[in-house]
Amino acid sequence: MKFFKVKTVEETFALIDECVPVIEKTEIRALEEALHYILAEPIIAKENVPGFDRSTVDGYAVMAEDTYGSSESMPGFLSVVGEVKMGEEATHSIGHGEAIYVPTGGMLPPGSNSVIMIEHCEEIAGLLNTYKQIAPGENIIRAGDDIKEGEVLLQKGAKLRPQELGAIAALGISHVTVYRRIKVAYLSSGDEIVPFQTERLEIGQIRDINHLTIIGLAQEWGHDVEYGGIVKDNVEVFLQKARELYENADCLILSGGSSVGAKDYTTDVIESLGKPGVFVHGISVKPGKPTILAIADGKPVIGLPGHPASAMIIFRLFGQRILQKLKGERLEKKPDRIYARITKNIPSSPGRSDYIRVKLVDREGEWWAEPIIGKSGLITTLVKSDGIVEIMSEKEGIAQGEYVPVILT
Amino acid sequence: MKFFKVKTVEETFALIDECVPVIEKTEIRALEEALHYILAEPIIAKENVPGFDRSTVDGYAVMAEDTYGSSESMPGFLSVVGEVKMGEEATHSIGHGEAIYVPTGGMLPPGSNSVIMIEHCEEIAGLLNTYKQIAPGENIIRAGDDIKEGEVLLQKGAKLRPQELGAIAALGISHVTVYRRIKVAYLSSGDEIVPFQTERLEIGQIRDINHLTIIGLAQEWGHDVEYGGIVKDNVEVFLQKARELYENADCLILSGGSSVGAKDYTTDVIESLGKPGVFVHGISVKPGKPTILAIADGKPVIGLPGHPASAMIIFRLFGQRILQKLKGERLEKKPDRIYARITKNIPSSPGRSDYIRVKLVDREGEWWAEPIIGKSGLITTLVKSDGIVEIMSEKEGIAQGEYVPVILT
Repeated sequence: MKFFKVKTVEETFALIDECVPVIEKTEIRALEEALHYILAEPIIAKENVPGFDRSTVDGYAVMAEDTYGSSESMPGFLSVVGEVKMGEEATHSIGHGEAIYVPTGGMLPPGSNSVIMIEHCEEIAGLLNTYKQIAPGENIIRAGDDIKEGEVLLQKGAKLRPQELGAIAALGISHVTVYRRIKVAYLSSGDEIVPFQTERLEIGQIRDINHLTIIGLAQEWGHDVEYGGIVKDNVEVFLQKARELYENADCLILSGGSSVGAKDYTTDVIESLGKPGVFVHGISVKPGKPTILAIADGKPVIGLPGHPASAMIIFRLFGQRILQKLKGERLEKKPDRIYARITKNIPSSPGRSDYIRVKLVDREGEWWAEPIIGKSGLITTLVKSDGIVEIMSEKEGIAQGEYVPVILT
Repeated sequence: MKFFKVKTVEETFALIDECVPVIEKTEIRALEEALHYILAEPIIAKENVPGFDRSTVDGYAVMAEDTYGSSESMPGFLSVVGEVKMGEEATHSIGHGEAIYVPTGGMLPPGSNSVIMIEHCEEIAGLLNTYKQIAPGENIIRAGDDIKEGEVLLQKGAKLRPQELGAIAALGISHVTVYRRIKVAYLSSGDEIVPFQTERLEIGQIRDINHLTIIGLAQEWGHDVEYGGIVKDNVEVFLQKARELYENADCLILSGGSSVGAKDYTTDVIESLGKPGVFVHGISVKPGKPTILAIADGKPVIGLPGHPASAMIIFRLFGQRILQKLKGERLEKKPDRIYARITKNIPSSPGRSDYIRVKLVDREGEWWAEPIIGKSGLITTLVKSDGIVEIMSEKEGIAQGEYVPVILT
């Protein structure tokens, strides 16, 4: 067996970014079927959005200068010379002293440079009383103000949230090239682990909780999941099942058996799956130290600790990053950590990153993080918590009232 | 037409909580198919979790008192009298001066009250040298420490996140009673609106962006969605299509046509669908004032403003709350708003809530919210933003450096 030095959290993230490949396989999807997919090609604007100057309010298109000096007590007067209908071209242009009615979204008539809202004027028998002065450009959007022709709207690697889909739709693009969905296979191991549906436990048996939590997280992140069942602590059976799942998936997740106990076959199994093999064996975190990360023939393999709470935290921290990298997502620093103030002092060992489950409590408009008391093996600590506080390895703990980063769970 | 006073954000939320019913229809689902569903019945623990006292580490079960005074330089000595195997009952009990090997998760032998980690002791020919003193209860979990028999683990209305599924699985419960999935129908309206797939626009036409953004949000929240297409500004056609969709869905969403413009049929259509009808017509927010909320024969109907960015913000704020209430979710104050510091002064009118799109920027470990410049009609303002800052109606603006709540988008 190779010798591995326990890695820090920072080293682990750097190794993930370095070692995990992008899936490569892409597909063309209809936009309405592309929510949360990752762009495999940039989106370049082939036209202006909007395509014409338009009003953002219901009102009258005018030359702004004609309203200067207008007020409630001293209204200005303009002649209403027409109306632009929604969805129709504004052909009639206006000159000084003239106004044309335009609905919200309607096209701006040539000659006008602003729109006075109907709330700020009054039309009486073809005469418009203006009660307010407006500035050039007020209440209008110019052609290309939203998206300019030729502009790179979205980069390769962008995740398609609803707003990205909307912006692509605005360009009349109906199909996009995206990385295809990732398939994750999951396998539990351990002589003591039994299916969670087991009605009555024999002494010493434990139901397979990680089956639900780990697969649930992977589904939450939008991946397809294959559940491989539970294998006993028998290296041949374990390896055979792992290989079968691995052949058919983009990433293999193994749970249990990664502690330094006598029956630790997980490392051997992972090393047998392919090269280059394990790149992280042990992370300096609490909980979750006995974590194994590997690449076997281009596919990531994740060996999670057996404790349900540890497994979830590790998978949320490192598994999510691995899967994001694998599916081609551009890894930007995003606010997945919010800041809250800790309600009590928490000691921590320097050189190790600690993850403390917390409940978030609103105190006078500010979030405070209240640590959940309970050993790391307890699944209910995660049920009671809203997030986990990260105490980075260089810190010797945190003091009451200090701002701390919280990862929402 | 009824007369409506514009509501504040707070009044609108209070009215939603008061007026929107819970869907009532429930179903029994297998736990592995229940992610993100809402519990329609509480979960009561029918057994202890764990069911037996167990070790949280690889080590030796001992009586803690026997280790008192042990140190690296002055080890204590105990006789190893056996080993508990994983998944097996610990039958052999220990007395003073004795130790039994227990793996992580293994059952604690009767008589022992703690486990000394293998890192802190050494077994040499049946003799255990202990290099550290431990306290009673150290490195063990007692039966029922996680979940106690008879305890209400989860209340009706709880959302089943992965950790809730895990905790239910720990109890050997394989099926849960949940509210059934909600079906949302969506209809766009407006003479100027054309399918987003339209290759080349006529002058004055606008592609149906809300189709993608609103349906995308509803899907993100886990709802089934039916897209009803686009209807022209014709009250009979609009009403017929709206009624058809409404009959077949739990909630109807209409986009466009809710401004005070000449062709505003949306209110009439909504009022025709059923009683009691409209309960909010206009909300004192920017953007998104022309919003209509109604209940027709027990089903919520939402009339969104037409501007894409306004529609998204309104749907994110009020639509999400309506759908949460409808699907039976317990509405707790949860950290969907994070706090960040604003990078510049923002003026605001008292009496109106403003929602400012912002990009979140990490400055020395703290999130700062940087306002995105651009008119509310621009979809790209949402693409560039990470969230929206809420300036509540009682405020006259916010000052640079002030902490502000940000809703992540």
